Amino acid sequence: MRIAHRINKLGTETAFSVSQEANNLKAQGKTVYPFHLGDINIITPKNVIDTCNDAMNKGITGYTSNYGLTALRETLAEDINKSRGTSYTLDNVTIQPGGKPVIGKFIMALMNPGDEVLYPNPGYPIYESMIEFHGGTGLAYGYKEGKTNFEIDFDDLESKITDKTKILVYNNLHNPTGAESSDEEMERIAKLVVKHDLYVLCDEAYFDLRYHGDSKSLTSYPGMEERCVILYTFSKKFSMTGWRLGAAIAPKEISEVIAKLNLNDESCTNHFIQYAAIEAITGDQSGSKQIISSLKKRRDLCVEMLNAIDGVSCFSPNATFYLFPNVTGVMDRKGYTSYEDFRKDVLYNTGVSFCTRLHFGRAKADEKNKYIRFAYSGIDEKDIIEGLTKLQEFLK
Amino acid sequence: MRIAHRINKLGTETAFSVSQEANNLKAQGKTVYPFHLGDINIITPKNVIDTCNDAMNKGITGYTSNYGLTALRETLAEDINKSRGTSYTLDNVTIQPGGKPVIGKFIMALMNPGDEVLYPNPGYPIYESMIEFHGGTGLAYGYKEGKTNFEIDFDDLESKITDKTKILVYNNLHNPTGAESSDEEMERIAKLVVKHDLYVLCDEAYFDLRYHGDSKSLTSYPGMEERCVILYTFSKKFSMTGWRLGAAIAPKEISEVIAKLNLNDESCTNHFIQYAAIEAITGDQSGSKQIISSLKKRRDLCVEMLNAIDGVSCFSPNATFYLFPNVTGVMDRKGYTSYEDFRKDVLYNTGVSFCTRLHFGRAKADEKNKYIRFAYSGIDEKDIIEGLTKLQEFLK
Repeated sequence: MRIAHRINKLGTETAFSVSQEANNLKAQGKTVYPFHLGDINIITPKNVIDTCNDAMNKGITGYTSNYGLTALRETLAEDINKSRGTSYTLDNVTIQPGGKPVIGKFIMALMNPGDEVLYPNPGYPIYESMIEFHGGTGLAYGYKEGKTNFEIDFDDLESKITDKTKILVYNNLHNPTGAESSDEEMERIAKLVVKHDLYVLCDEAYFDLRYHGDSKSLTSYPGMEERCVILYTFSKKFSMTGWRLGAAIAPKEISEVIAKLNLNDESCTNHFIQYAAIEAITGDQSGSKQIISSLKKRRDLCVEMLNAIDGVSCFSPNATFYLFPNVTGVMDRKGYTSYEDFRKDVLYNTGVSFCTRLHFGRAKADEKNKYIRFAYSGIDEKDIIEGLTKLQEFLK
Repeated sequence: MRIAHRINKLGTETAFSVSQEANNLKAQGKTVYPFHLGDINIITPKNVIDTCNDAMNKGITGYTSNYGLTALRETLAEDINKSRGTSYTLDNVTIQPGGKPVIGKFIMALMNPGDEVLYPNPGYPIYESMIEFHGGTGLAYGYKEGKTNFEIDFDDLESKITDKTKILVYNNLHNPTGAESSDEEMERIAKLVVKHDLYVLCDEAYFDLRYHGDSKSLTSYPGMEERCVILYTFSKKFSMTGWRLGAAIAPKEISEVIAKLNLNDESCTNHFIQYAAIEAITGDQSGSKQIISSLKKRRDLCVEMLNAIDGVSCFSPNATFYLFPNVTGVMDRKGYTSYEDFRKDVLYNTGVSFCTRLHFGRAKADEKNKYIRFAYSGIDEKDIIEGLTKLQEFLK
């Protein structure tokens, strides 16, 4: 078979092999506690489902525009402006079949081959994959532990920048660490963006999935609206992962390019689900509140039970549904040097399934601390207690 | 704004400007007869909509695999095997958000920069766009009028092939002409594919949208299953254009590459609509039969009324919902040399809106005959009669 050379540069999400392993165990009749999943085991709110069904039954089964449904684009621009203090209109909004497609389309629209792109590591592996697939050079920047949460390692980030650095991928409310920029950190990023004339992919997938306080966006800082493309998704807050519905919020000229990419790729996003999305934003919010409230309980439970293990320390982030516990102590104490040995031993002995730092990018040579990632979006409280009790027992 | 250079090579569907013009006229209160649309103004069958709603209400609102739903992939492989005599399994099927994404993914998976790709002109403009966007060189091949339908201009096609020619885009049941390969033509293509060691994108979007006889696939010929990727879509037969649901049917190794591209782009296709697709294929077919029967009546009406115009001659293809009337005579008689003058005069004087040959690729220098494209999928019989009566009157 004569596969094109470019495919060699295409990355993947290695976390899927963890899913596969967990599924195999389950198929053997073993109990698995799924902390590896980024999916949500809560159904989409009923008002959203009902609106979708209404739209289908009204005959909204034909194409819509490659930009997306006008009414949804307007609704979304207003909603974004309310929380970010921005001045977007429908011209800045292109609807996408998920938040993820924004990554590749942003890269194709703004990166030339040879350009350098700053991206978070640990981070969502698709950034690096799309940068390299389209001929760019990824510059990984890291995170370090602060007082109450992870912080961007600014020394690391700034040391990477050269004349060829054109783009920053910035995932505030960060997968996998749960990191959230302080005002100071965000200001520093805004300054750096101007100084080095960068464009920014603001991956704000978890912006509305928070338990306390308000999320902040880089687009709220002066001059940033012209340099940022927001990755927006309906997946998290409304538990709509399987619907595949998101949007790129971008300067008009970039929106037009992204719409042209849409036209060449998927033509348009499913038409009738876009009516459901309007209901999700403007309709009854009790479903979404219920989702957030359930996730908050799970977070508190996980953080408490993980921190109770000797040699594990875990922040309690105000947003996302991820935890990134430092497990250096317990791995040392138990004699593990390999992430995979640790992960597999835990999985096969307790059924507790999680991802490690290695599923979110290559570890740096000088990395001393060891981290694993717990997602609590796909597991109920009862199973959290059962699973983490077994984990506590195993790691005693 | 610093848009990436590659965007200069990205094409579009110029037919959308015709839609825009028609919509503007309608907004001014004028009656428009929409023969320019490739959309279907018939709602999706109720059993398909109901199954979709059931799936949502059962909680199928989370992610599915980047390959697509296993049950749908199995169903589709069986269905394809039944009509093509092939031996596909679920391993050969990757679900896509529409048929169109298969074009770009096929090109990315198999074409290297500098490779030459044969593609039909007139033809669907996204082939050329994706070939050039990803660094290939498009080699346009044409069609000529046969006795009862258009035929591939084999002299043209064969004369283009060089050592660099690696891929053939083959759209049997062809948009815009309605062309359908005879057994002889298809055999000739199969031989040529082997002789020149080509891979083939078989765009079979209209395979199941036919009024008489059976469609044939290049994949049915010996050795072709290993060299072909079928573009499959639910859009046409089941009137599901706005659902955005299709599939790539490919050799296993290519399927794996396409699934990896899915994972990097849209993650997966909407989960719950994949249950509706199983119902579409395996459930009650009366809705689909009704769609085909309505379209057949429209075809017969259009063909008859167009052929009644002096200087217009129009085939009656057994598949697709497109007509590609030869209007050389009437344009000469009325003194038109420019397609756009002709199209606009007809539109503004009669409200009849259609695309021309120019919306499906650049005209060749030696092209003598003039053609326009009528789509009858988006207009009812009553309006066809009213519109084409006005057209007959105007072109007297």
